[in-house]
Amino acid sequence: MVTEQQIREALTKVIDPELNRNVIELNMLRDLHIDNGNVKFTLALTIPDCPLRDQIEHDARMAVLALEGVKNVEITLSAMSEEERNRLFGKSTAPQTSDFNRIGRAVAIASGKGGVGKSSVTALLAAGLAKLGYHVGVLDADMTGPSIPRLFGLREPPLGGPNGILPPRTLRGIKVMSVNLLLPREDEAVIWRGPIVSKVIEQFWNEVVWGELDYLLIDLPPGTSDAPLTVLQTLPVAGIILVTTPQELSSMIVRKAGRMAEQLNRPILGIIENMSIFICPVCGTRHELFGPSHVEEITDAPLLGRLPIDPQLTVMEDAGAVEVYETEETKKLVKEFLKVVPPPYGR
Amino acid sequence: MVTEQQIREALTKVIDPELNRNVIELNMLRDLHIDNGNVKFTLALTIPDCPLRDQIEHDARMAVLALEGVKNVEITLSAMSEEERNRLFGKSTAPQTSDFNRIGRAVAIASGKGGVGKSSVTALLAAGLAKLGYHVGVLDADMTGPSIPRLFGLREPPLGGPNGILPPRTLRGIKVMSVNLLLPREDEAVIWRGPIVSKVIEQFWNEVVWGELDYLLIDLPPGTSDAPLTVLQTLPVAGIILVTTPQELSSMIVRKAGRMAEQLNRPILGIIENMSIFICPVCGTRHELFGPSHVEEITDAPLLGRLPIDPQLTVMEDAGAVEVYETEETKKLVKEFLKVVPPPYGR
Repeated sequence: MVTEQQIREALTKVIDPELNRNVIELNMLRDLHIDNGNVKFTLALTIPDCPLRDQIEHDARMAVLALEGVKNVEITLSAMSEEERNRLFGKSTAPQTSDFNRIGRAVAIASGKGGVGKSSVTALLAAGLAKLGYHVGVLDADMTGPSIPRLFGLREPPLGGPNGILPPRTLRGIKVMSVNLLLPREDEAVIWRGPIVSKVIEQFWNEVVWGELDYLLIDLPPGTSDAPLTVLQTLPVAGIILVTTPQELSSMIVRKAGRMAEQLNRPILGIIENMSIFICPVCGTRHELFGPSHVEEITDAPLLGRLPIDPQLTVMEDAGAVEVYETEETKKLVKEFLKVVPPPYGR
Repeated sequence: MVTEQQIREALTKVIDPELNRNVIELNMLRDLHIDNGNVKFTLALTIPDCPLRDQIEHDARMAVLALEGVKNVEITLSAMSEEERNRLFGKSTAPQTSDFNRIGRAVAIASGKGGVGKSSVTALLAAGLAKLGYHVGVLDADMTGPSIPRLFGLREPPLGGPNGILPPRTLRGIKVMSVNLLLPREDEAVIWRGPIVSKVIEQFWNEVVWGELDYLLIDLPPGTSDAPLTVLQTLPVAGIILVTTPQELSSMIVRKAGRMAEQLNRPILGIIENMSIFICPVCGTRHELFGPSHVEEITDAPLLGRLPIDPQLTVMEDAGAVEVYETEETKKLVKEFLKVVPPPYGR
């Protein structure tokens, strides 16, 4: 005979994808009746027209049906009263998305210079962290040249829920928000001046339902103007990771990004050198295509890794499969990243 | 015996570098006396403390001394009266630099995407055009990641003349203006929001003494925000040249820059593909490091050329010697550029 305790336990595995908490924790379970293997209960959603109601109902049914002795499951969906919601979230009636967000570590990936592979590095780090089981989000702060959705093969627009914007998830469950997910065509030009860019970045932080994240990686655009400035000035980022290429010219411009971070009192947590070398797959010759490394001249922060030029990565990025790409270098990168940005919540 | 006519003719070769007009045309010659091979005259400078007075005097002396029969040259420098200046320039008393500027064709080099080589291409085009004898200027509109001075090895700050800012010149006489020439250290961060960026771009156009130019190439920063928008909206550019790399992701973002230009009614004059291939110098294998070309998907505008990845170019750029770099590909590039942006003034 199945017990109430068993059902409650089973339902702790049903997660509200929007809030990243389980339905028991959220106090959704009501009116549980068990009658000879027939189980009936109500789930009170936090909001009546929750766009994920079908998924929650399905997950709950599967979880309970999996218990030995359960023959049938009947679920009624209802909604919490405003008072219940307030009790749960302990806040004012007006839903503020940030109430649901609990972001462990926000880290900005910066370079100052364009085209050094900030977005590639961001995506590779996110994928590596997600593979290790961390909850990861990527906020694409590049409004006019957003690369992140393409790398992960994301096209569908985010769902607009009553609690905020629901970011689409990648294969490995990384939550992604980018202006390119909102455009009718991905090659549409976003001709916005700085104030609008800054406003939208703040919205991506405040009005997106990130839920509970260990890491939120923020992919900055090139330069040291509005977008990077807004991220470093107004968002509670733990620090920045610099990305550079060997060319001396890149080093000079990447140093500018480092100086910006210093001036805004954001620590440089580490530096990554991209496109360091190319090894000819035919003859094995090692080519320093962009010259010898100048990474030591940029910062005293730890060097987290050097990534070679790999045509295979380009292919997988263009195919939207950056998450599947993994090499010894990328694994080492994630390991070094975890040393300088240790997981939050004592995980 | 040397004649007044001969001296006048010789002095037509003496150019005021600031105004790009010769001293006869500028009506500077006064009180010419010829006495048995001894030549005496006065040059009335347009402004008393002209920073180029020594150079003009030197050039004038050399030009006259080169004439047969001249034994000695005595030059007095004076300055024009306000009235004379006004008669010459036909304008109000307040000197406006733009009065001295005559810019044949202003062309913006754009890509939307960072790191595709906009600055490299701009520098290579400028060098090639200058080598053919055209008067060329480069306006670096990238305030937060300016690369142009480094490529040309320029470090010294521009001279501030009474008529405006005198841009430094490269080996081949290309006039260059960039925010990096104004910074105490080239890796200083310029943390400016959009409105200031736009203001400075306008100053680079209006308050720099470009003089008479056949071509002014404007190196745009990545993105489609303030800086590119200001250039395309407020400066009289003939059109844009797009720069891309083969990666499909680049094409997507470069299309955004193309769309911006279209929306602002600026034609796309041509497109250049950079980093197309790398040929292993050891085994000769041809590598498409960033994948196959997608240039046809970007625009119908003519393809002006494809440039390979060449480590030698990186070396020369880091050494400030981009002007010395010339290959079959760069020569072809300049030739194709001249087809789509023919020289002004019927040269």
